[in-house]
Amino acid sequence: MSEAGFPLSREVVDRIIKGQRIDMDRVNIREMAKVVKVAEEELGVEYIRMEIGIPGLPLSSIASQAEAEIFEEGKGSEYPPLEGTDRLRKATSRFVKMFLNVDVPWQYCVATNGAMQGGFVSQAIAGELHPDRKTILYIDPSFPVNRLQARFLGLHVDSVDLFDYRGDNLVSAIEERFRRGDVGGLLWSTPNNPSWVVLTDGETRGIGELLDRYEVIGIEDLAYICMDFRHDYSKPGQPPYPPCVGHYAENFIILLSGSKAFNYAGQRIGVSAVSPALAEKRYPNLAHRFGSDLVGEAYMKGAMYPMTAGVAQSSQNGLAALMEKACDGEYDFVGQVREYAGRAKHMKKTMLSSGFSLVYDNDLGKPLADGFYFTVRYNGLTAGDLLREMLCYGLSAIPLSVAGSKSTDGIRICVSKITPDLMEGFDYRVRRFHEDHSVAPANT
Amino acid sequence: MSEAGFPLSREVVDRIIKGQRIDMDRVNIREMAKVVKVAEEELGVEYIRMEIGIPGLPLSSIASQAEAEIFEEGKGSEYPPLEGTDRLRKATSRFVKMFLNVDVPWQYCVATNGAMQGGFVSQAIAGELHPDRKTILYIDPSFPVNRLQARFLGLHVDSVDLFDYRGDNLVSAIEERFRRGDVGGLLWSTPNNPSWVVLTDGETRGIGELLDRYEVIGIEDLAYICMDFRHDYSKPGQPPYPPCVGHYAENFIILLSGSKAFNYAGQRIGVSAVSPALAEKRYPNLAHRFGSDLVGEAYMKGAMYPMTAGVAQSSQNGLAALMEKACDGEYDFVGQVREYAGRAKHMKKTMLSSGFSLVYDNDLGKPLADGFYFTVRYNGLTAGDLLREMLCYGLSAIPLSVAGSKSTDGIRICVSKITPDLMEGFDYRVRRFHEDHSVAPANT
Repeated sequence: MSEAGFPLSREVVDRIIKGQRIDMDRVNIREMAKVVKVAEEELGVEYIRMEIGIPGLPLSSIASQAEAEIFEEGKGSEYPPLEGTDRLRKATSRFVKMFLNVDVPWQYCVATNGAMQGGFVSQAIAGELHPDRKTILYIDPSFPVNRLQARFLGLHVDSVDLFDYRGDNLVSAIEERFRRGDVGGLLWSTPNNPSWVVLTDGETRGIGELLDRYEVIGIEDLAYICMDFRHDYSKPGQPPYPPCVGHYAENFIILLSGSKAFNYAGQRIGVSAVSPALAEKRYPNLAHRFGSDLVGEAYMKGAMYPMTAGVAQSSQNGLAALMEKACDGEYDFVGQVREYAGRAKHMKKTMLSSGFSLVYDNDLGKPLADGFYFTVRYNGLTAGDLLREMLCYGLSAIPLSVAGSKSTDGIRICVSKITPDLMEGFDYRVRRFHEDHSVAPANT
Repeated sequence: MSEAGFPLSREVVDRIIKGQRIDMDRVNIREMAKVVKVAEEELGVEYIRMEIGIPGLPLSSIASQAEAEIFEEGKGSEYPPLEGTDRLRKATSRFVKMFLNVDVPWQYCVATNGAMQGGFVSQAIAGELHPDRKTILYIDPSFPVNRLQARFLGLHVDSVDLFDYRGDNLVSAIEERFRRGDVGGLLWSTPNNPSWVVLTDGETRGIGELLDRYEVIGIEDLAYICMDFRHDYSKPGQPPYPPCVGHYAENFIILLSGSKAFNYAGQRIGVSAVSPALAEKRYPNLAHRFGSDLVGEAYMKGAMYPMTAGVAQSSQNGLAALMEKACDGEYDFVGQVREYAGRAKHMKKTMLSSGFSLVYDNDLGKPLADGFYFTVRYNGLTAGDLLREMLCYGLSAIPLSVAGSKSTDGIRICVSKITPDLMEGFDYRVRRFHEDHSVAPANT
């Protein structure tokens, strides 16, 4: 159909939403993807899809060649070591030193089936250190699946929202919550999914000090490592380095993901770098579930073994090769994902000049970086109403509520799938949306 | 060193055991592997390693070619569907029909990171159906890691041992345990690891009827599918078929593993075939942990998503290709693993003529099949003493205690790594052991 056909039929859109019994104020990624799929079929239009955070760039052949080597070496039939292959663990240790300036000896690096499994195991351990500290505190907004992990594990969740607190106030709010004595772990991502807020070095230092003082495990999700493009983090072994909890605390686990930084989502490959001091600590309560009171052993043998008995040999080898090349300065992983920044810059400009405003709108007074995500609201509409209206203009996204945010009007925009050839259509649809809504807001 | 050097130094062996603080009556696979590694270094002898159940055959190039296709198609960067790829799920459905004569539509087949993850998730679900039925009943002996899974999940475990019960008595013993009303799942493997007992069709029928009557989920681990070589199960779509819970119950989950039947251990790939009737059942208690009261949805979205967000695209494609070729009659997976039967036959004969006797010694009066494992004892020695003595003859294995067996003198022998070129050395060592022990049993 021609672009002139917007808005699409509200009746059809409403019927699809109703048919799937979806609450648009709380719709998750998979549900929205289903709505879009049906809408595309029924309405004959291709949507501009900003709901799902999947890599929009190709995987390097460095990875696929290293995967193939495993079969040539006959390792497809050999169980991988539970902790990961030596090659991947050594590459991780080097990578963490070169790009974060943090020292984690390779013996404390663990291969995981995606950073997803790293988040699952890290929360499981953090929630089991002490019998009476079963709460994981989240710095919200946050990756929605972390909450599903805590639910599966029977853990409690509480939250401090970046919308309410930044800087010293953030650190104070966390400390206040720690003081109650029931928190075993603190979980955050930086750059943050979905807001693209980046914790400052000062915030990270404050948090790190609290972790050690209150003996809480800090779980730092670096899925978007080095993707704060306001700084050039692309040179291995050279400053500047991103802020990292490893600079300031003993009680930390860093989660690294192949999916976003290396476009490796299909192969479910990540690594956890466990603080050596933490790994060697003993907590008697851990033995109940993990058969060892040592944190490192509980992680690798007590959790990774019974969950999946390790990670596919070939994807470990692929990620190892990518990390090695990155450390050698022969593969610029930061440069290739910088593509996303250009897309975000363009899309933000279009939306902000069309009546949208940013929800999470600054980093302690500085403008946010351009990256994988940003967050917007529109003119007093609730998130659910906004998403429904946007669907009538061939645009899809998700509400911030599913990321634990207190915002009731904010939505998350993911730029990864909006390739340059789609930008003209994006601009057109956003402007059409605004033309129709700035005059007479939809009667909801 | 020459073969004449047996027995090896008892002092050195004892020192190694003591140095690693290992209880030989309860030594697990990984611990034994460590003991052997050190012993090989210190004593300069290569051990005949029967402790670890790893495939001793190469992975087919059908699999590695299918893995490579994923990268050519650019899917290395695309998240896999949570439930698995359509191709693997359809191949699984067909495979289950062709080799088990069980109907599980592809929508109820789920890719897992090894059958290991299938066992973890299945137990998690079975233990959560009802608030007051948190016990998993095991038919022992059994795969030791299943107990670690239950421990991680905070579930209770109880056991009925094949050593005490077979046939109608086995079914009665299970029913008696079900009557207490606290069992959510029943877990068994057939052929059984470690005893290589195969449940009969009558036993399977009796168990299946109990599962539905008492509303317990039967988790049938078919890691060694079609490997009862007393029957020819190698012809797709043609009888005979192995006994299978799917013939007699609605409440079942079948676990299939790439590791043993397809020599695919390195890539951590398995599938679960969930009974369609079970998958569509609703249990309100499930929603607490899994966000849905539907068993199938709890499995795929509530558990697989937060644990690992699915399975690597390439290993899914590899297993799919193997299953397709097996169903087409172009890849005889049964024929290739029949190699293990020849090894078992030879090794059993040597051991039984050298003073060893079988622990699990018959299938309801019929001789056990020759396969991946068998179980032996020696002349009144405890399992720990026997293993220590065997170490002095360059032989390693594990005690049945770690498999939940009540036997205190039995050990498990795994034949998979004992290639034909090692058989002469195996025979020599076993006979030397017997010469030394039949005269004057070691003073323990």
